[in-house]
Amino acid sequence: MWGWTSPRRRELRGGLGIVVWDEPFFQGKKHEFTTDCYSTLEHGFSTVRSCKIESGAWAGVEHCGFQGQQFVLERGEYPCWEAWSGSNAYHVERMCSFRPIACADHGRSRLMLFEQENFQGKRAEMSDDCPSLPALGWGSSTVGSFLVRSGAWVCSQYPGYRGFQYLLESDSPAGEYKHVREWGSHAQTGQVQSIRRVQQ
Amino acid sequence: MWGWTSPRRRELRGGLGIVVWDEPFFQGKKHEFTTDCYSTLEHGFSTVRSCKIESGAWAGVEHCGFQGQQFVLERGEYPCWEAWSGSNAYHVERMCSFRPIACADHGRSRLMLFEQENFQGKRAEMSDDCPSLPALGWGSSTVGSFLVRSGAWVCSQYPGYRGFQYLLESDSPAGEYKHVREWGSHAQTGQVQSIRRVQQ
Repeated sequence: MWGWTSPRRRELRGGLGIVVWDEPFFQGKKHEFTTDCYSTLEHGFSTVRSCKIESGAWAGVEHCGFQGQQFVLERGEYPCWEAWSGSNAYHVERMCSFRPIACADHGRSRLMLFEQENFQGKRAEMSDDCPSLPALGWGSSTVGSFLVRSGAWVCSQYPGYRGFQYLLESDSPAGEYKHVREWGSHAQTGQVQSIRRVQQ
Repeated sequence: MWGWTSPRRRELRGGLGIVVWDEPFFQGKKHEFTTDCYSTLEHGFSTVRSCKIESGAWAGVEHCGFQGQQFVLERGEYPCWEAWSGSNAYHVERMCSFRPIACADHGRSRLMLFEQENFQGKRAEMSDDCPSLPALGWGSSTVGSFLVRSGAWVCSQYPGYRGFQYLLESDSPAGEYKHVREWGSHAQTGQVQSIRRVQQ
């Protein structure tokens, strides 16, 4: 799949995770986390205003206690809230809790889509990223339910991974998402037009 | 790569392309295009406020004459400007010109990245989508120059295909993008942290 001619895939460095700052552009108070953060307030941050992911993939969440809108954060630099917020329609300037995401090997990720809730209706199985479900013959702009067979996936409201995004994980109870209420937080429309694997 | 159990990949329907409306949510005046639109004004639209891509992949552009910020639009529904605008930092409520993108077969797409301008410095070759360049060992959050060997690619400012996006095409002059000026429109930072193929 990948053909790097010069740099080599870096080994995961076990001791690093997410580094956060309380000001944009990596300024102000700094803290490094390698495991769950239930509330940034417990660490003296009112919110996170910039962060760098040093290893793994992380779920950032709007409010404390993993409540509110989710953001999938893969390795790289997020200098301001605009960098992690997935939607132009709903401005999320806060990230008050976060946790690591358990991914599968890319080749082993499997996700089932169902037209209706409770795993009913037309179905499809995915093992690769897809920036446009309509381009692959999914006849609707919505999905009724998901069954995550393996890995972690992120689905997005609009094509090209835009708009609200929702995390789907195989290690949530049995990987079952029977109804939009179980994955959608703010935009409870079931509108899903792009889906991809989360990259470790 | 894909394992649909029920729906089949739809054949491209030659006669359809992009359908646009002058009001959000597919309301108001409607027009269908199957080829380039230099200026929506020529067709009596001050701007496009919603659209559906029925076949192919399209480049939407902020101003008339293909000037300003670009948006890669793949098959699906874009009910409002928030659906196609790639950046939270720069609100683009206008789409006044658009044109089809020539893609390659997914398996045949090739892109070369260079650390410095004019194809200098460390290099890497890509043939697959990548939501995080840092995760694959690209040591910097910027790219100096690109050479598109085959296909059409979209690179994004932040991981996970967020932020400003830039279209890279093999049929632009020789596929050569020697300097950020040649792909960046508004955000001329060279900051590129995710890259993927454009899907037909």
